[in-house]
Formats: sequence, C-alpha cells, structure tokens
Amino acid sequence: VERRCATVEELVEAIRELAVRGAPSLGVAAAMGMALAAERASDEGFEAELDRSRALLAGSRPTAVNLVWGLEQTDAARAPGGTPAEVRERLAALAARIQEDEVERGRRMGAHGAALLARGARVLTHCNAGPLACGGHGSALAVIRHAAEDDPSLHVWVAETRPLLQGARLTAWELGQLGVDHTLVVDSAAGQLFARGLVDAVVVGADRICANGDVANKVGTYTLSVLARAHGVPLIVVAPSSTVDTGLPSGSQIPIEERDPQEVLAVAGVPVAPAGTRAANPAFDVTPAANVSAIVTEEGVHRPPYAFRPAAALAS
Amino acid sequence: VERRCATVEELVEAIRELAVRGAPSLGVAAAMGMALAAERASDEGFEAELDRSRALLAGSRPTAVNLVWGLEQTDAARAPGGTPAEVRERLAALAARIQEDEVERGRRMGAHGAALLARGARVLTHCNAGPLACGGHGSALAVIRHAAEDDPSLHVWVAETRPLLQGARLTAWELGQLGVDHTLVVDSAAGQLFARGLVDAVVVGADRICANGDVANKVGTYTLSVLARAHGVPLIVVAPSSTVDTGLPSGSQIPIEERDPQEVLAVAGVPVAPAGTRAANPAFDVTPAANVSAIVTEEGVHRPPYAFRPAAALAS
Repeated sequence: VERRCATVEELVEAIRELAVRGAPSLGVAAAMGMALAAERASDEGFEAELDRSRALLAGSRPTAVNLVWGLEQTDAARAPGGTPAEVRERLAALAARIQEDEVERGRRMGAHGAALLARGARVLTHCNAGPLACGGHGSALAVIRHAAEDDPSLHVWVAETRPLLQGARLTAWELGQLGVDHTLVVDSAAGQLFARGLVDAVVVGADRICANGDVANKVGTYTLSVLARAHGVPLIVVAPSSTVDTGLPSGSQIPIEERDPQEVLAVAGVPVAPAGTRAANPAFDVTPAANVSAIVTEEGVHRPPYAFRPAAALAS
Repeated sequence: VERRCATVEELVEAIRELAVRGAPSLGVAAAMGMALAAERASDEGFEAELDRSRALLAGSRPTAVNLVWGLEQTDAARAPGGTPAEVRERLAALAARIQEDEVERGRRMGAHGAALLARGARVLTHCNAGPLACGGHGSALAVIRHAAEDDPSLHVWVAETRPLLQGARLTAWELGQLGVDHTLVVDSAAGQLFARGLVDAVVVGADRICANGDVANKVGTYTLSVLARAHGVPLIVVAPSSTVDTGLPSGSQIPIEERDPQEVLAVAGVPVAPAGTRAANPAFDVTPAANVSAIVTEEGVHRPPYAFRPAAALAS
C-alpha cells in the first residue's frame, strides 16, 4: 500500500503510526516534510509556518536522531534567507539530495558489511532495516542483500520482532522479494538457535549510536547481544553515519520511548490478554559497545575504540 | 470455557491442541484418560482397548515426561489383573489420587519456593505454570502466589510467551484472579528489564528435568537463563518431582518437539507474515544446569550437585 501525505500533519501522523519508520527514512521524512511545508505555506507568514511545521516534526518521535539531523539540515538550508520561492527551492533540492544520498549510503554499507560475513553464513536479524525503513537498499538488509548476491547459500533467521512484528511483516517480505533464503522464528527462539550453533552472525540496524559505540535499537536487540556474546558470535550494527550522535557520550543518556501498551495487549486488533491487564512497551533498548563487534556505516567498518566524525562534518 | 472430553480420542485431540497442557496436568490427564478408556470399554476386548488407548495417549506429545509417568502408574494399576470392573475401579481411584496429590504438591512447592524470594521481589516469569497447567496451585505460580500472600509488594513481570501467548492469555489471567501485581511485556523486552536492574529473580516451571539439572521448558526459557546469568540474577525452576527424569543424564538427550509453523505465521488466526514464508517453531529449549540456581519440587529446594530420587521411588 502506498500512502501519500499531503500535509505536514498527515506526515507527522504517519510517523507516529510507524507508517514511516526506520532511522534513515526518518531523516528523509524530516527534510521532505519541511519541503512540503514550504510548498504549501503562503508567502504571508511563511517563516512562522515553517517554524510551526518544524516543531510538529521534531515532536513526532523522541528517540530518532535522524529526524533531528534531517531538521538541522533544513535549518541550514533556511539560514541564508531570501524570498519564500528561493527557500522552497532550496528545501526541495535538499530533500531530494538527502534521499539520493541514502540510496548511495545503502550501497556502500552493503559492500562494507558483506565483507564481514563468511560464505554460507547463517545470519540472525531483528526488526527491519531494509528498503522499507531506509529507502535504497536499507542498512542491515543492504549487507544481507550484498552478501547473498555472491553467496546463494547465505541463510537468514528473521526474528518476528514483537510487538509490531516488523521482522515477520517487513523483513520476511523484503527477503522474499530479493530471493534470499530465510526462516522466521519467534523472538525468544533465538537462544536455542545460538545454543545449537546455528547462528554465525547477528546483523541489525540502529536508531541511535553514541560516541562510545553504545547502540539504541528496537527492543530485543540487547537480548540478542547478550546471547551473541555468551556464544562468541559477532554482532554487527549497520547504520548510516547520520545515526551516530557524537554529542551523546554513552547510551545512558538516550531517552527510551515508551509506546502504547495496546501494541502488547492486542495483535492485529485481537486482544491477547485479559481486559485490564497492564503492559509495559519500551520501543527500544540500549546495547552497550562491549556487546558490539563492529559498526558498519557508509564510510567503512568501525571497530572500538570508536572515533566517529561529528554529524556536522558529514553534512558538508 | 470448560471442555469435556468424553472419549480418549477427544482427550488426545485436546492434548495435541494444548487445551490440556503443562507438565503436571499431562500426568493427571494420562491417568484420567486411562480411567475414561476403562469406563467406556466393554468387557469383551477390554485389555486390547486399554492398550490401544494407552498407545494413543503416549503418542500425543513426545516431550512431556509426565505423560509417560502417568501412563506408567496406570500400567502398575492394571498389572494385578482381575475383572474389568476391578481394573476400572483401580484406574478411577488412581486418577483421583494423582489429581489430589498434584494439589498437595503445589502447596508444598509454593512454600519451599517462596522462601527463596526477598520481600518486594520483582519476579520475571515465562509461559504458564499455574493452576490452568497443573491443577491445584500450579508450580511456578504456586511460588508466586505463596510469596504474594505474605508480601503485597511483590511484582511479577509476565513474558507474553510467543507463539501461543500463554503468558498473556493464562498467567496474566491467573495473576489477576489472585490479585497479584503484574505487568505484561513482550518476550524480547526481558533484556532491558535485566539491564535496568528491574528483575530480582526468574521463576519458571519445567517440562522435563534431567538427572544433572538440565531443564527443558517452553522456548525462551534458555534465553532468559542466559540473561539472568549475565546479570547475576537467580533462575529458579519449580516443578513436581514427577517432572524429573533420572533416566536422562543430560539435556542433550531431550527430543525437542517442532510444532506447526502456522503458530508463528499467524496470531489469533490473523496472518502476520507474507504467504509462503517458512517458519521454525521449536516448542521447547534446554537450559543447562549451570544457568539454574535452584530446582524446587514438593520435596524441597534442590541445589547442585543434584541427587534426585528416581521416579519409581516417588510413586511408592
């Protein structure tokens, strides 16, 4: 299903409902949202309308650094001022460029990360970090896609990723489209796969990466990282450089979004717990750098101690 | 909903569909099933009909040792021979006794296990090991119930337990009935709870316990055991002695039931993955004794090195 957002409000709603999701896509959406706001705003009150739209977009998801990064790029595009027509044109060009860059970034992440996987590797992945989340080739899925192109024996274990089942709904679909061999499992079956020696690498995306290499990603990533470490299996995080927040020294500073308990209490609209049950629904968890083997960005493979370039340097 | 099984075939179907489930309940069901078979069998061909029913029951679930244990008790009750009427009476009395014993066992497990929990403990549990699985007070839930009776500040984290959501559907319901404070989480959120220091103990049931203390239980238990160990949190296994299979030296000999992939591919009848997706659905995993802090039975608290009495000694 394609969903068109004709106003910033519709886009914010789509972000809130996770129709637009995944760190890189949120960066694109932020820039697209501001270009949209500029296109629709009348010349009168133009700047005030853009400021209002920026605030709406910034408030749509508290954890995703890419959203903030995308908005900061639009701040820079607005900074020189000029007529509303000029600002509209600059914001539209910026949004298009950020999207194109995302496609190219995916290609590079894929090539860098695939080099870390042995032939016939059995790769476990969690949530969705493919084209539906990132545009282009995705991040974690770009690595899997690149590796599978040269190695049809590659196998992917797809964790279903409760509560919203992005693994089952999105990653399994994308792997099917790509013709990559894969098997779906419930999240808690991962332990047994490790114990039976059936996992050679864990490859996941990231929503936010700290200067020290701590990684915020979909809830359950930390659980997988503990299992991977206990079994001597590498955990590889794949994300564009825009996901790195060098302003955050470590993961303890990352705010964790607590989402609607209904996502846990019902599946596909069907209640799965007694009425009145209380549920906790943290959307993310933080995987400490000690549990991460490598962080792959479009720039290459990063190993500890990490020395990421600040985001400002990336934007130039 | 109450479900009546008027024939052994209906009972076997109920066991296959997990309408009757949980190790202790399966022991009761095996004896009840044989008593039912005897009640319905005509005097002519009586023994052959009982043998046929026994084979049906034995084939209904391959992993549960309690089922086999229950059937062995009925073998002993049949062994002295006699008229069909006499055998019917002995099997009915045996089934009633096994059920009553289960209730008493639950009370004892509850008392022994509750002594291991500190006041105000935050307990994580997985799957369902309560009255619905065990009759009486359950096993893991008997411990929680007993502890909560003296300590209203006890809190239970309920892992939903995909694919069949026994945690959400059954354990949350039972805790609600008992008035015990609890919060439901998706299975993969457990890691974050440990990382944030919110779990003081893991309390789970068991489907099969080996002589060395290895434990087969619902898939995901092993994952929790690795997390518990990594965070220095005790994992307490609670089960009646009939769950201990002293004939099995270690967990590597336990056959793991692979269940219908549809349980993963759909939730409450709603497909959650693209058509044609392959899924693996192991029903159990094996937690090594090294990850288990204590095993609680009706006899008391067992610590390594384990010296369980053989099942034959228990039956006497």
